[in-house]
Amino acid sequence: MSAANNPTFRERLTQAASSTGSRLMIGLDPVIDKMPRSISRDPAGVLDFNRRIIEATHDLVIGYKLNFAFYEVLGPAGWDVLAQTRASIPPTLVSLADAKRGDIGDTSEMYAASILDTLGFDAVTVSPYVGREGIEPFLARKSRGTFVLCRTSNLDTTVQTRETAGGAIFEMIAREVPMWGENIGLVVGATDLQALARVRSLAPDTPFLVPGVGTQGGKLENAIAAATGPTGSHSLIAVSRSVLYASMEDDWVQASRRRALKLREGTQAAMVRSVTES
Amino acid sequence: MSAANNPTFRERLTQAASSTGSRLMIGLDPVIDKMPRSISRDPAGVLDFNRRIIEATHDLVIGYKLNFAFYEVLGPAGWDVLAQTRASIPPTLVSLADAKRGDIGDTSEMYAASILDTLGFDAVTVSPYVGREGIEPFLARKSRGTFVLCRTSNLDTTVQTRETAGGAIFEMIAREVPMWGENIGLVVGATDLQALARVRSLAPDTPFLVPGVGTQGGKLENAIAAATGPTGSHSLIAVSRSVLYASMEDDWVQASRRRALKLREGTQAAMVRSVTES
Repeated sequence: MSAANNPTFRERLTQAASSTGSRLMIGLDPVIDKMPRSISRDPAGVLDFNRRIIEATHDLVIGYKLNFAFYEVLGPAGWDVLAQTRASIPPTLVSLADAKRGDIGDTSEMYAASILDTLGFDAVTVSPYVGREGIEPFLARKSRGTFVLCRTSNLDTTVQTRETAGGAIFEMIAREVPMWGENIGLVVGATDLQALARVRSLAPDTPFLVPGVGTQGGKLENAIAAATGPTGSHSLIAVSRSVLYASMEDDWVQASRRRALKLREGTQAAMVRSVTES
Repeated sequence: MSAANNPTFRERLTQAASSTGSRLMIGLDPVIDKMPRSISRDPAGVLDFNRRIIEATHDLVIGYKLNFAFYEVLGPAGWDVLAQTRASIPPTLVSLADAKRGDIGDTSEMYAASILDTLGFDAVTVSPYVGREGIEPFLARKSRGTFVLCRTSNLDTTVQTRETAGGAIFEMIAREVPMWGENIGLVVGATDLQALARVRSLAPDTPFLVPGVGTQGGKLENAIAAATGPTGSHSLIAVSRSVLYASMEDDWVQASRRRALKLREGTQAAMVRSVTES
């Protein structure tokens, strides 16, 4: 256990989970054309939109996930919106950079520095293709979480489901990667529930980031049942479009809050059932 | 063959290779502390440094490779430097975004739009872990090249060298990925020459981006021998630190040019030998 003023990522996560009572993570993935009509169609509008979503939902979620592609597409101004949105997330919640970076060691050190130090995100997603050396610079920051892609929410078979003597590649990742550090998590999509349950059986105590619930097709309750481990491990259930674009009209703030509220109730009910039944 | 005013990436590459007579690609990976003493230690200095390197070497190279980590670490200003450096690369040369992006389809579409459309790079590096769906948006831009990570220059064994029934993962990538499109290339490091030769045998006609020559330990001549295919396929030999940081003193422009000149001579001699002997 580290000093209270410098908690490890696991401690931060446990604290956020118990203080919020939520496992819902809203993906702040703003698409200009889909934003409510009253919001200006420019980077300043995107920041305004993000801040109002945070204002309307911050008591319902464990944190927010920002997919970097949605900001980079805005050009240099997007990087500013990213930094300012990060700064608008309450410090008790988890801010997650969905950047899926993955490069060799010295380059990864720069990605880790810019995402975890300069921008100050609590956690980040990374790709395992370049291997452990490329993930170490992220792991070295003990107060930050590193979620490694394991089984993504699309159903492609190029690498992840390829069979080796020790199982499919995603099973090898699930078995080996959690041993690299206490601050490791895995990204496991909700679209293939069998795979999700399999990864949970291989990594019983590892935090999961679970995308693919909602518009990507995964059913909330089943996903939570599959993602919940025997130790009640933390699964962050990521939803984005269904909350962000609940309405394009003037009632959008209330509509987004209602949607988040309903999703939180769904996750809570499913969690209680999963823990009771397991 | 497409219309001359809208060439495919293969045509662009062939044109650049024959008009420059070079396979050398300089990695513009600026590290502030290592820049010559006379350059200011800020984003404006980085842009100035890049422009002067381009000015000093543009007649010796087939193009320039920009690793995004080195720009993102500079914050929002870094994105401006990236855009302006891209704009400073002569249009006859190949500009390559070494971004190693890899996400599911709709997110990849945004990465492709920002890197290949907005920033206007001729080519990009991507990771195959998320699978074909995540690479399709890049491939859809026929005039741009997509270099998929195959065997990276570090020697990690987490995914790439894992054995399947059809060979190691990197061999599966080498065999299958080139069939996805005519504008596909592969990233194959020069540090493991056996692997490089193996990938060339599996993908005889595919352009390679070959990092790891120079400070990463690969020997230039052996790398070129291993990377050269029976059809004399294009291999872009990436070098960075040895050219950028040839001198910190007032002679740095000349020192960098001398280093690039020597590397180009080395690549040309090795190419002639490889083609003659094969």
